Amino acid sequence: MSDCIFCKIIDGSIPSTKIYEDEYVYAFMDISPLTKGHTLLIPKEHVANVFEMSEETASNLFKVAPRIANAIKDTVNPAGMNLLNNNGEKAGQSVFHFHLHFIPRYDETDGYKPTWVTKESEFTQEVVKQLSDEIIANLNK
Amino acid sequence: MSDCIFCKIIDGSIPSTKIYEDEYVYAFMDISPLTKGHTLLIPKEHVANVFEMSEETASNLFKVAPRIANAIKDTVNPAGMNLLNNNGEKAGQSVFHFHLHFIPRYDETDGYKPTWVTKESEFTQEVVKQLSDEIIANLNK
Repeated sequence: MSDCIFCKIIDGSIPSTKIYEDEYVYAFMDISPLTKGHTLLIPKEHVANVFEMSEETASNLFKVAPRIANAIKDTVNPAGMNLLNNNGEKAGQSVFHFHLHFIPRYDETDGYKPTWVTKESEFTQEVVKQLSDEIIANLNK
Repeated sequence: MSDCIFCKIIDGSIPSTKIYEDEYVYAFMDISPLTKGHTLLIPKEHVANVFEMSEETASNLFKVAPRIANAIKDTVNPAGMNLLNNNGEKAGQSVFHFHLHFIPRYDETDGYKPTWVTKESEFTQEVVKQLSDEIIANLNK
């Protein structure tokens, strides 16, 4: 897409620190890293988010995730790693070309600290069962 | 794996609220939801994390991610959605069978609030270029 910064990175008109490329995907160092080794994996096809992605594109994208994750791990020796994909502004997406973050994790100095507050009391078994029935209906429509 | 809670969910010896299943994957509602519609997608093959995952398993897993994301979206109508995979205890992993979280996002009441502090000053272009050279070497070794 002509005004997409990631499409321009793929076609080389905007520079990037590339680590991997094949027919379907492009991986490069995040220009605003949260931690040492923070990398992005994107499909070459312009899709805004996971909702617009075809099965084929999704399949070709994640196929290389283990290899990229291991190469980053072998390089920076982190304590752990988060793979994160944000869809929509409210979910933290700022570039509207699908991207999967590889965020190596170390210690308390990490720039990425998810607050994780579960809500079992709000989402009772009955509520969740009702939801799941609706999701199943939407999966099969 | 005999003592893995997610393997037991797949084989039915521990109950779950399933929304999808095929030859390769199993998807079910997270028993400790962060938000309405919080769902997990796991490979049927027992792999602890992304580092241990084969290309084939990764490919088969993410292939269905767009369909599952859309079905959740159509059901709960969120403002956005995060897809998240935690690898290692320090990255927030608590069950050591690979799982991809689908976390619909709504507003300030969300139970999932990632702190996002970028570190451009620490990771200069030179530092990142050196890192990328090492990652590329590890990708190709």
